[in-house]
Amino acid sequence: MAQGTDPYILYYWPTIQGRGEFVRLALEEAGVPYQDVARLKSGMPQLEAALDFDEEALAAFAPPVLRAGDLLIGQTTNILQFLGARHGLAPRSEKGRLWCNQLQLTIADIVAEAHDTHHPISVGSYYEDQKKEAKARARDFRATRIPKFLGYFENVLKHNGARGSFAVGSRLTYVDLSLFQLVEGLRYAFPNTMTALEPQWPHLVALADAVRERPNIAAYLQSKRRIAFNEDGIFRRYPELDK
Amino acid sequence: MAQGTDPYILYYWPTIQGRGEFVRLALEEAGVPYQDVARLKSGMPQLEAALDFDEEALAAFAPPVLRAGDLLIGQTTNILQFLGARHGLAPRSEKGRLWCNQLQLTIADIVAEAHDTHHPISVGSYYEDQKKEAKARARDFRATRIPKFLGYFENVLKHNGARGSFAVGSRLTYVDLSLFQLVEGLRYAFPNTMTALEPQWPHLVALADAVRERPNIAAYLQSKRRIAFNEDGIFRRYPELDK
Repeated sequence: MAQGTDPYILYYWPTIQGRGEFVRLALEEAGVPYQDVARLKSGMPQLEAALDFDEEALAAFAPPVLRAGDLLIGQTTNILQFLGARHGLAPRSEKGRLWCNQLQLTIADIVAEAHDTHHPISVGSYYEDQKKEAKARARDFRATRIPKFLGYFENVLKHNGARGSFAVGSRLTYVDLSLFQLVEGLRYAFPNTMTALEPQWPHLVALADAVRERPNIAAYLQSKRRIAFNEDGIFRRYPELDK
Repeated sequence: MAQGTDPYILYYWPTIQGRGEFVRLALEEAGVPYQDVARLKSGMPQLEAALDFDEEALAAFAPPVLRAGDLLIGQTTNILQFLGARHGLAPRSEKGRLWCNQLQLTIADIVAEAHDTHHPISVGSYYEDQKKEAKARARDFRATRIPKFLGYFENVLKHNGARGSFAVGSRLTYVDLSLFQLVEGLRYAFPNTMTALEPQWPHLVALADAVRERPNIAAYLQSKRRIAFNEDGIFRRYPELDK
Protein backbone atom coordinates (compact mmCIF):
# COMPACT_ATOMS: atom_id res chain seq x y z
CA MET A 1 0.00 0.00 0.00
CA ALA A 2 0.95 3.61 -0.28
CA GLN A 3 3.60 3.42 2.40
CA GLY A 4 6.41 5.88 2.13
CA THR A 5 6.65 6.87 -1.50
CA ASP A 6 5.14 3.84 -3.24
CA PRO A 7 1.92 4.90 -4.95
CA TYR A 8 -0.82 2.42 -5.68
CA ILE A 9 -0.80 0.98 -9.17
CA LEU A 10 -4.13 0.43 -10.89
CA TYR A 11 -4.30 -2.04 -13.75
CA TYR A 12 -7.32 -1.41 -15.89
CA TRP A 13 -8.27 -0.92 -19.53
CA PRO A 14 -7.08 2.53 -20.57
CA THR A 15 -9.99 3.65 -22.76
CA ILE A 16 -13.09 2.92 -20.67
CA GLN A 17 -14.56 3.69 -17.27
CA GLY A 18 -15.78 0.11 -16.81
CA ARG A 19 -15.42 -1.58 -13.46
CA GLY A 20 -12.15 0.26 -12.91
CA GLU A 21 -14.09 3.48 -12.45
CA PHE A 22 -15.46 2.33 -9.09
CA VAL A 23 -11.86 1.98 -7.92
CA ARG A 24 -10.74 5.26 -9.49
CA LEU A 25 -13.52 7.13 -7.66
CA ALA A 26 -12.42 5.69 -4.31
CA LEU A 27 -8.77 6.59 -4.95
CA GLU A 28 -9.72 10.10 -6.05
CA GLU A 29 -11.99 10.73 -3.08
CA ALA A 30 -9.31 9.45 -0.71
CA GLY A 31 -6.81 11.76 -2.38
CA VAL A 32 -4.10 9.11 -2.49
CA PRO A 33 -1.54 8.95 -5.32
CA TYR A 34 -1.96 6.19 -7.88
CA GLN A 35 -0.70 5.28 -11.31
CA ASP A 36 -3.35 4.28 -13.83
CA VAL A 37 -0.69 2.22 -15.44
CA ALA A 38 -2.23 1.05 -18.71
CA ARG A 39 -2.85 4.68 -19.66
CA LEU A 40 0.88 5.35 -19.61
CA LYS A 41 2.96 4.85 -22.73
CA SER A 42 3.93 1.18 -22.83
CA GLY A 43 1.77 0.43 -19.78
CA MET A 44 -0.30 -2.37 -21.33
CA PRO A 45 2.34 -5.10 -20.84
CA GLN A 46 2.20 -4.36 -17.12
CA LEU A 47 -1.57 -4.89 -17.13
CA GLU A 48 -1.11 -8.16 -18.99
CA ALA A 49 1.51 -9.32 -16.51
CA ALA A 50 -0.99 -8.92 -13.65
CA LEU A 51 -3.16 -11.52 -15.41
CA ASP A 52 -0.34 -13.98 -16.11
CA PHE A 53 0.55 -16.78 -13.69
CA ASP A 54 4.05 -16.97 -15.14
CA GLU A 55 4.72 -13.52 -13.74
CA GLU A 56 2.33 -13.33 -10.80
CA ALA A 57 1.61 -16.01 -8.20
CA LEU A 58 -1.79 -14.45 -7.54
CA ALA A 59 -2.76 -13.59 -11.11
CA ALA A 60 -6.25 -12.17 -11.50
CA PHE A 61 -8.95 -13.50 -13.80
CA ALA A 62 -9.66 -10.02 -15.13
CA PRO A 63 -8.98 -6.33 -14.44
CA PRO A 64 -9.29 -4.20 -12.39
CA VAL A 65 -6.30 -5.16 -10.28
CA LEU A 66 -4.65 -2.96 -7.67
CA ARG A 67 -1.05 -3.25 -6.57
CA ALA A 68 -0.51 -2.07 -3.00
CA GLY A 69 3.08 -2.72 -2.05
CA ASP A 70 3.39 -6.51 -1.77
CA LEU A 71 -0.30 -7.06 -2.33
CA LEU A 72 -1.88 -7.64 -5.71
CA ILE A 73 -5.66 -7.42 -5.35
CA GLY A 74 -8.27 -8.35 -7.94
CA GLN A 75 -12.07 -8.06 -8.13
CA THR A 76 -13.67 -4.64 -7.75
CA THR A 77 -15.53 -5.26 -4.49
CA ASN A 78 -12.40 -6.79 -2.96
CA ILE A 79 -10.31 -3.76 -3.91
CA LEU A 80 -12.94 -1.39 -2.51
CA GLN A 81 -13.15 -3.28 0.75
CA PHE A 82 -9.37 -2.96 1.07
CA LEU A 83 -9.27 0.73 0.18
CA GLY A 84 -12.29 1.50 2.33
CA ALA A 85 -10.60 0.11 5.43
CA ARG A 86 -7.29 1.86 4.73
CA HIS A 87 -8.60 5.29 3.85
CA GLY A 88 -11.63 5.95 5.99
CA LEU A 89 -14.12 5.08 3.26
CA ALA A 90 -15.79 2.35 5.32
CA PRO A 91 -17.05 2.13 8.90
CA ARG A 92 -14.76 0.71 11.57
CA SER A 93 -17.30 -1.71 13.01
CA GLU A 94 -17.63 -5.26 11.70
CA LYS A 95 -21.36 -4.71 11.24
CA GLY A 96 -20.79 -1.57 9.19
CA ARG A 97 -18.13 -3.19 7.02
CA LEU A 98 -20.25 -6.24 6.31
CA TRP A 99 -23.16 -4.01 5.31
CA CYS A 100 -20.92 -1.93 3.02
CA ASN A 101 -19.57 -5.03 1.32
CA GLN A 102 -23.08 -6.45 0.98
CA LEU A 103 -24.34 -3.28 -0.70
CA GLN A 104 -21.30 -3.09 -2.98
CA LEU A 105 -21.89 -6.70 -4.06
CA THR A 106 -25.47 -5.79 -4.88
CA ILE A 107 -24.22 -2.87 -6.97
CA ALA A 108 -21.87 -5.30 -8.74
CA ASP A 109 -24.89 -7.46 -9.56
CA ILE A 110 -26.78 -4.70 -11.34
CA VAL A 111 -23.59 -3.57 -13.10
CA ALA A 112 -23.19 -7.09 -14.52
CA GLU A 113 -26.81 -7.04 -15.64
CA ALA A 114 -26.34 -3.62 -17.25
CA HIS A 115 -23.43 -5.08 -19.21
CA ASP A 116 -25.51 -8.02 -20.36
CA THR A 117 -28.15 -5.73 -21.89
CA HIS A 118 -25.79 -5.25 -24.83
CA HIS A 119 -24.15 -8.69 -24.61
CA PRO A 120 -26.91 -11.14 -23.60
CA ILE A 121 -25.54 -14.08 -25.59
CA SER A 122 -21.75 -13.82 -25.74
CA VAL A 123 -19.16 -11.41 -24.37
CA GLY A 124 -16.86 -12.51 -27.17
CA SER A 125 -19.17 -11.49 -30.02
CA TYR A 126 -20.11 -8.08 -31.34
CA TYR A 127 -23.18 -6.24 -30.13
CA GLU A 128 -24.40 -6.09 -33.71
CA ASP A 129 -24.52 -9.90 -33.79
CA GLN A 130 -26.82 -10.10 -30.74
CA LYS A 131 -28.86 -6.95 -31.23
CA LYS A 132 -32.24 -8.63 -31.32
CA GLU A 133 -31.59 -10.47 -28.06
CA ALA A 134 -30.13 -7.28 -26.60
CA LYS A 135 -33.39 -5.47 -27.26
CA ALA A 136 -35.34 -8.15 -25.39
CA ARG A 137 -32.95 -8.21 -22.47
CA ALA A 138 -32.80 -4.41 -22.26
CA ARG A 139 -36.61 -4.25 -22.27
CA ASP A 140 -36.69 -6.52 -19.23
CA PHE A 141 -33.83 -4.66 -17.57
CA ARG A 142 -35.61 -1.32 -17.93
CA ALA A 143 -39.03 -2.63 -16.91
CA THR A 144 -38.15 -4.85 -13.98
CA ARG A 145 -34.48 -4.84 -12.99
CA ILE A 146 -33.68 -1.12 -12.81
CA PRO A 147 -36.81 -0.47 -10.70
CA LYS A 148 -36.07 -3.42 -8.42
CA PHE A 149 -32.40 -2.56 -7.77
CA LEU A 150 -32.75 1.22 -7.59
CA GLY A 151 -35.89 0.91 -5.49
CA TYR A 152 -33.85 -1.26 -3.14
CA PHE A 153 -31.05 1.32 -2.86
CA GLU A 154 -33.63 4.06 -2.31
CA ASN A 155 -34.95 2.00 0.59
CA VAL A 156 -31.43 1.55 1.98
CA LEU A 157 -30.94 5.33 1.99
CA LYS A 158 -34.40 6.01 3.39
CA HIS A 159 -33.94 3.55 6.25
CA ASN A 160 -30.47 4.70 7.28
CA GLY A 161 -31.35 6.47 10.49
CA ALA A 162 -28.01 8.28 10.81
CA ARG A 163 -27.43 11.90 9.82
CA GLY A 164 -25.84 12.82 6.51
CA SER A 165 -28.00 11.05 3.95
CA PHE A 166 -25.34 8.45 3.16
CA ALA A 167 -25.94 4.77 2.46
CA VAL A 168 -24.15 3.46 5.56
CA GLY A 169 -23.86 5.28 8.88
CA SER A 170 -23.22 9.02 9.08
CA ARG A 171 -20.12 9.29 6.87
CA LEU A 172 -19.34 8.83 3.20
CA THR A 173 -18.28 5.31 2.20
CA TYR A 174 -17.16 3.75 -1.06
CA VAL A 175 -20.76 2.56 -1.47
CA ASP A 176 -21.93 6.15 -1.94
CA LEU A 177 -19.28 6.73 -4.60
CA SER A 178 -20.38 3.59 -6.42
CA LEU A 179 -24.07 4.52 -6.21
CA PHE A 180 -23.16 7.84 -7.86
CA GLN A 181 -21.35 5.96 -10.65
CA LEU A 182 -24.26 3.55 -11.07
CA VAL A 183 -26.78 6.37 -11.41
CA GLU A 184 -24.51 8.24 -13.84
CA GLY A 185 -23.95 5.13 -15.92
CA LEU A 186 -27.64 4.29 -16.12
CA ARG A 187 -28.43 7.90 -17.05
CA TYR A 188 -25.89 7.68 -19.87
CA ALA A 189 -27.12 4.33 -21.18
CA PHE A 190 -30.86 4.71 -20.61
CA PRO A 191 -31.65 8.43 -20.55
CA ASN A 192 -35.35 8.10 -21.38
CA THR A 193 -35.90 5.39 -18.81
CA MET A 194 -34.05 7.24 -16.10
CA THR A 195 -35.79 10.53 -16.76
CA ALA A 196 -39.12 8.78 -16.40
CA LEU A 197 -38.24 6.78 -13.29
CA GLU A 198 -35.94 9.01 -11.25
CA PRO A 199 -38.68 10.88 -9.40
CA GLN A 200 -39.33 7.59 -7.58
CA TRP A 201 -35.89 7.70 -5.96
CA PRO A 202 -35.41 11.12 -4.36
CA HIS A 203 -32.85 9.95 -1.80
CA LEU A 204 -30.73 8.28 -4.46
CA VAL A 205 -30.82 11.30 -6.75
CA ALA A 206 -29.86 13.59 -3.86
CA LEU A 207 -26.97 11.31 -2.96
CA ALA A 208 -25.67 11.32 -6.54
CA ASP A 209 -25.84 15.13 -6.54
CA ALA A 210 -23.99 15.33 -3.23
CA VAL A 211 -21.20 12.99 -4.38
CA ARG A 212 -20.73 14.94 -7.61
CA GLU A 213 -20.13 18.12 -5.63
CA ARG A 214 -17.51 16.76 -3.26
CA PRO A 215 -14.29 18.71 -3.91
CA ASN A 216 -12.09 15.75 -4.87
CA ILE A 217 -14.77 14.16 -7.02
CA ALA A 218 -15.70 17.44 -8.72
CA ALA A 219 -12.03 18.07 -9.55
CA TYR A 220 -11.64 14.53 -10.87
CA LEU A 221 -14.73 14.72 -13.08
CA GLN A 222 -13.36 17.84 -14.74
CA SER A 223 -9.88 16.41 -15.22
CA LYS A 224 -8.50 14.40 -18.13
CA ARG A 225 -8.26 11.43 -15.79
CA ARG A 226 -12.03 10.95 -16.11
CA ILE A 227 -12.61 9.03 -19.32
CA ALA A 228 -15.94 9.85 -20.99
CA PHE A 229 -18.65 7.20 -21.14
CA ASN A 230 -18.45 5.43 -24.50
CA GLU A 231 -19.69 2.41 -26.40
CA ASP A 232 -16.81 0.15 -25.38
CA GLY A 233 -17.63 0.29 -21.68
CA ILE A 234 -20.27 -1.29 -19.49
CA PHE A 235 -22.83 1.50 -19.79
CA ARG A 236 -23.44 2.07 -23.51
CA ARG A 237 -25.85 4.43 -25.17
CA TYR A 238 -27.62 2.49 -27.87
CA PRO A 239 -30.87 4.37 -28.48
CA GLU A 240 -32.62 1.19 -29.65
CA LEU A 241 -32.12 -0.30 -26.17
CA ASP A 242 -33.85 2.63 -24.46
CA LYS A 243 -37.25 2.69 -26.09
CA MET B 1 -22.98 -15.68 15.81
CA ALA B 2 -22.96 -19.07 17.40
CA GLN B 3 -22.07 -17.79 20.85
CA GLY B 4 -23.37 -19.81 23.72
CA THR B 5 -26.44 -21.60 22.46
CA ASP B 6 -27.56 -19.38 19.58
CA PRO B 7 -27.20 -21.29 16.32
CA TYR B 8 -26.77 -19.52 13.03
CA ILE B 9 -29.94 -19.05 11.03
CA LEU B 10 -29.74 -19.45 7.27
CA TYR B 11 -32.45 -17.88 5.14
CA TYR B 12 -32.59 -19.49 1.73
CA TRP B 13 -35.09 -21.03 -0.65
CA PRO B 14 -36.08 -24.42 0.76
CA THR B 15 -36.24 -26.49 -2.44
CA ILE B 16 -32.99 -25.71 -4.25
CA GLN B 17 -29.25 -25.77 -3.67
CA GLY B 18 -28.76 -22.44 -5.43
CA ARG B 19 -26.36 -19.90 -3.98
CA GLY B 20 -27.33 -21.00 -0.49
CA GLU B 21 -25.44 -24.26 -1.06
CA PHE B 22 -22.08 -22.49 -0.93
CA VAL B 23 -23.03 -21.32 2.56
CA ARG B 24 -24.43 -24.70 3.62
CA LEU B 25 -21.18 -26.42 2.63
CA ALA B 26 -19.13 -24.01 4.76
CA LEU B 27 -21.44 -24.49 7.76
CA GLU B 28 -21.34 -28.26 7.36
CA GLU B 29 -17.55 -28.45 7.00
CA ALA B 30 -17.15 -26.20 10.05
CA GLY B 31 -19.51 -28.46 11.97
CA VAL B 32 -21.40 -25.56 13.51
CA PRO B 33 -25.11 -25.76 14.30
CA TYR B 34 -27.47 -23.86 12.03
CA GLN B 35 -31.14 -23.68 11.22
CA ASP B 36 -32.05 -23.79 7.54
CA VAL B 37 -35.12 -21.84 8.48
CA ALA B 38 -37.24 -21.80 5.34
CA ARG B 39 -37.18 -25.60 5.32
CA LEU B 40 -38.97 -25.67 8.65
CA LYS B 41 -42.73 -25.71 8.81
CA SER B 42 -43.88 -22.06 8.60
CA GLY B 43 -40.29 -20.89 8.05
CA MET B 44 -40.97 -18.94 4.84
CA PRO B 45 -42.31 -15.82 6.59
CA GLN B 46 -38.98 -15.56 8.42
CA LEU B 47 -37.13 -15.62 5.12
CA GLU B 48 -39.42 -12.91 3.78
CA ALA B 49 -38.85 -10.77 6.86
CA ALA B 50 -35.09 -10.79 6.19
CA LEU B 51 -35.84 -9.09 2.85
CA ASP B 52 -38.23 -6.50 4.26
CA PHE B 53 -37.07 -3.07 5.44
CA ASP B 54 -40.10 -2.73 7.66
CA GLU B 55 -38.79 -5.57 9.77
CA GLU B 56 -35.04 -5.34 9.20
CA ALA B 57 -32.88 -2.21 9.12
CA LEU B 58 -30.34 -4.04 6.96
CA ALA B 59 -32.71 -5.94 4.70
CA ALA B 60 -31.03 -7.92 1.94
CA PHE B 61 -31.77 -7.64 -1.76
CA ALA B 62 -32.02 -11.43 -2.08
CA PRO B 63 -31.23 -14.66 -0.25
CA PRO B 64 -29.03 -16.20 1.01
CA VAL B 65 -28.94 -14.29 4.28
CA LEU B 66 -27.27 -15.46 7.48
CA ARG B 67 -28.24 -14.36 10.95
CA ALA B 68 -25.35 -14.50 13.39
CA GLY B 69 -26.50 -13.10 16.71
CA ASP B 70 -26.98 -9.37 16.12
CA LEU B 71 -25.62 -9.53 12.60
CA LEU B 72 -27.74 -10.08 9.51
CA ILE B 73 -25.45 -10.78 6.57
CA GLY B 74 -26.42 -10.94 2.90
CA GLN B 75 -24.58 -11.84 -0.32
CA THR B 76 -22.91 -15.24 -0.60
CA THR B 77 -19.30 -14.06 -0.78
CA ASN B 78 -19.87 -11.74 2.17
CA ILE B 79 -21.29 -14.57 4.27
CA LEU B 80 -18.41 -16.87 3.34
CA GLN B 81 -15.82 -14.24 4.21
CA PHE B 82 -17.47 -13.91 7.62
CA LEU B 83 -17.72 -17.65 8.26
CA GLY B 84 -14.22 -18.28 6.93
CA ALA B 85 -12.70 -15.89 9.44
CA ARG B 86 -14.75 -17.24 12.34
CA HIS B 87 -14.30 -20.96 11.73
CA GLY B 88 -10.81 -21.47 10.34
CA LEU B 89 -11.97 -21.72 6.74
CA ALA B 90 -9.78 -18.83 5.60
CA PRO B 91 -6.13 -17.87 6.17
CA ARG B 92 -5.27 -15.48 8.99
CA SER B 93 -3.09 -13.18 6.90
CA GLU B 94 -4.55 -10.18 5.10
CA LYS B 95 -2.94 -11.37 1.88
CA GLY B 96 -4.51 -14.81 2.19
CA ARG B 97 -7.94 -13.43 3.00
CA LEU B 98 -7.90 -11.02 0.08
CA TRP B 99 -6.89 -13.85 -2.25
CA CYS B 100 -9.69 -16.10 -0.90
CA ASN B 101 -12.27 -13.38 -1.38
CA GLN B 102 -10.95 -12.63 -4.87
CA LEU B 103 -11.24 -16.28 -5.90
CA GLN B 104 -14.72 -16.59 -4.37
CA LEU B 105 -15.87 -13.52 -6.31
CA THR B 106 -14.56 -15.13 -9.48
CA ILE B 107 -16.53 -18.27 -8.65
CA ALA B 108 -19.60 -16.06 -8.14
CA ASP B 109 -19.04 -14.65 -11.63
CA ILE B 110 -19.17 -18.03 -13.35
CA VAL B 111 -22.12 -19.10 -11.20
CA ALA B 112 -24.05 -16.05 -12.45
CA GLU B 113 -23.12 -16.93 -16.01
CA ALA B 114 -24.20 -20.55 -15.48
CA HIS B 115 -27.58 -19.22 -14.34
CA ASP B 116 -27.90 -17.04 -17.40
CA THR B 117 -27.48 -20.01 -19.76
CA HIS B 118 -31.11 -20.87 -19.02
CA HIS B 119 -32.27 -17.29 -18.43
CA PRO B 120 -30.38 -15.11 -20.92
CA ILE B 121 -33.22 -12.61 -21.48
CA SER B 122 -35.25 -12.33 -18.28
CA VAL B 123 -35.08 -13.90 -14.82
CA GLY B 124 -38.79 -13.22 -14.49
CA SER B 125 -39.85 -15.28 -17.51
CA TYR B 126 -39.97 -19.02 -18.05
CA TYR B 127 -37.08 -20.92 -19.56
CA GLU B 128 -39.45 -22.18 -22.26
CA ASP B 129 -40.02 -18.59 -23.38
CA GLN B 130 -36.30 -17.94 -23.95
CA LYS B 131 -35.18 -21.37 -25.08
CA LYS B 132 -33.75 -20.29 -28.40
CA GLU B 133 -31.62 -17.60 -26.80
CA ALA B 134 -30.67 -20.04 -24.04
CA LYS B 135 -29.26 -22.43 -26.63
CA ALA B 136 -27.09 -19.67 -28.09
CA ARG B 137 -25.86 -18.51 -24.70
CA ALA B 138 -25.20 -22.06 -23.50
CA ARG B 139 -23.21 -22.78 -26.67
CA ASP B 140 -20.94 -19.84 -25.90
CA PHE B 141 -20.75 -20.75 -22.22
CA ARG B 142 -19.64 -24.30 -23.03
CA ALA B 143 -17.20 -23.30 -25.77
CA THR B 144 -15.53 -20.27 -24.22
CA ARG B 145 -16.58 -19.48 -20.66
CA ILE B 146 -16.29 -22.87 -18.93
CA PRO B 147 -12.80 -23.40 -20.40
CA LYS B 148 -11.71 -19.89 -19.47
CA PHE B 149 -12.93 -20.00 -15.85
CA LEU B 150 -12.02 -23.62 -15.08
CA GLY B 151 -8.67 -23.24 -16.80
CA TYR B 152 -8.08 -20.25 -14.54
CA PHE B 153 -8.92 -22.22 -11.38
CA GLU B 154 -6.70 -25.09 -12.58
CA ASN B 155 -3.88 -22.56 -12.86
CA VAL B 156 -4.60 -21.26 -9.36
CA LEU B 157 -4.29 -24.78 -7.95
CA LYS B 158 -1.20 -25.58 -10.02
CA HIS B 159 0.59 -22.43 -8.93
CA ASN B 160 -0.16 -22.74 -5.22
CA GLY B 161 3.27 -23.73 -3.99
CA ALA B 162 2.07 -24.86 -0.56
CA ARG B 163 1.48 -28.50 0.41
CA GLY B 164 -1.99 -30.02 0.43
CA SER B 165 -3.31 -29.29 -3.07
CA PHE B 166 -5.74 -26.61 -1.87
CA ALA B 167 -6.56 -23.38 -3.66
CA VAL B 168 -5.07 -21.06 -1.04
CA GLY B 169 -2.16 -21.90 1.25
CA SER B 170 -1.76 -25.32 2.86
CA ARG B 171 -5.19 -25.68 4.48
CA LEU B 172 -8.75 -26.08 3.30
CA THR B 173 -10.66 -22.83 2.80
CA TYR B 174 -14.22 -22.02 1.79
CA VAL B 175 -12.88 -21.52 -1.74
CA ASP B 176 -12.13 -25.24 -2.00
CA LEU B 177 -15.66 -26.10 -0.89
CA SER B 178 -17.09 -23.73 -3.48
CA LEU B 179 -14.88 -25.11 -6.25
CA PHE B 180 -16.25 -28.56 -5.41
CA GLN B 181 -19.81 -27.24 -5.67
CA LEU B 182 -19.02 -25.47 -8.95
CA VAL B 183 -17.58 -28.64 -10.50
CA GLU B 184 -20.53 -30.71 -9.25
CA GLY B 185 -23.02 -28.19 -10.58
CA LEU B 186 -21.41 -28.00 -14.00
CA ARG B 187 -21.26 -31.80 -14.16
CA TYR B 188 -24.97 -31.95 -13.41
CA ALA B 189 -25.93 -29.28 -15.94
CA PHE B 190 -23.46 -30.04 -18.71
CA PRO B 191 -22.44 -33.72 -18.39
CA ASN B 192 -21.27 -34.15 -21.99
CA THR B 193 -19.23 -30.98 -21.94
CA MET B 194 -17.62 -31.75 -18.61
CA THR B 195 -16.79 -35.34 -19.55
CA ALA B 196 -15.03 -34.06 -22.64
CA LEU B 197 -13.15 -31.22 -20.94
CA GLU B 198 -12.31 -32.47 -17.45
CA PRO B 199 -9.03 -34.17 -18.41
CA GLN B 200 -7.66 -30.66 -18.96
CA TRP B 201 -8.07 -29.84 -15.27
CA PRO B 202 -6.45 -32.63 -13.21
CA HIS B 203 -5.81 -30.45 -10.15
CA LEU B 204 -9.39 -29.23 -10.07
CA VAL B 205 -10.83 -32.73 -10.42
CA ALA B 206 -8.53 -34.01 -7.67
CA LEU B 207 -9.62 -31.18 -5.39
CA ALA B 208 -13.31 -31.93 -5.98
CA ASP B 209 -12.66 -35.58 -5.13
CA ALA B 210 -10.80 -34.64 -1.96
CA VAL B 211 -13.55 -32.31 -0.78
CA ARG B 212 -16.24 -34.94 -1.39
CA GLU B 213 -14.40 -37.36 0.89
CA ARG B 214 -13.96 -35.05 3.84
CA PRO B 215 -15.89 -36.59 6.75
CA ASN B 216 -18.28 -33.71 7.40
CA ILE B 217 -18.94 -33.14 3.70
CA ALA B 218 -19.40 -36.85 2.97
CA ALA B 219 -21.90 -37.12 5.83
CA TYR B 220 -23.75 -34.03 4.62
CA LEU B 221 -23.97 -35.24 1.03
CA GLN B 222 -25.62 -38.45 2.21
CA SER B 223 -28.04 -36.69 4.53
CA LYS B 224 -31.49 -35.31 3.82
CA ARG B 225 -30.08 -31.85 4.35
CA ARG B 226 -28.47 -32.02 0.90
CA ILE B 227 -31.18 -31.12 -1.62
CA ALA B 228 -30.74 -32.83 -4.99
CA PHE B 229 -29.87 -30.74 -8.04
CA ASN B 230 -33.05 -29.90 -9.92
CA GLU B 231 -34.46 -27.69 -12.66
CA ASP B 232 -35.44 -24.84 -10.31
CA GLY B 233 -31.86 -24.13 -9.23
CA ILE B 234 -28.89 -22.44 -10.84
CA PHE B 235 -27.41 -25.58 -12.40
CA ARG B 236 -30.14 -27.16 -14.53
CA ARG B 237 -29.94 -30.22 -16.72
CA TYR B 238 -31.59 -29.32 -19.99
CA PRO B 239 -30.13 -31.77 -22.53
CA GLU B 240 -30.69 -29.31 -25.38
CA LEU B 241 -28.25 -26.90 -23.70
CA ASP B 242 -25.47 -29.51 -23.59
CA LYS B 243 -25.05 -30.50 -27.22
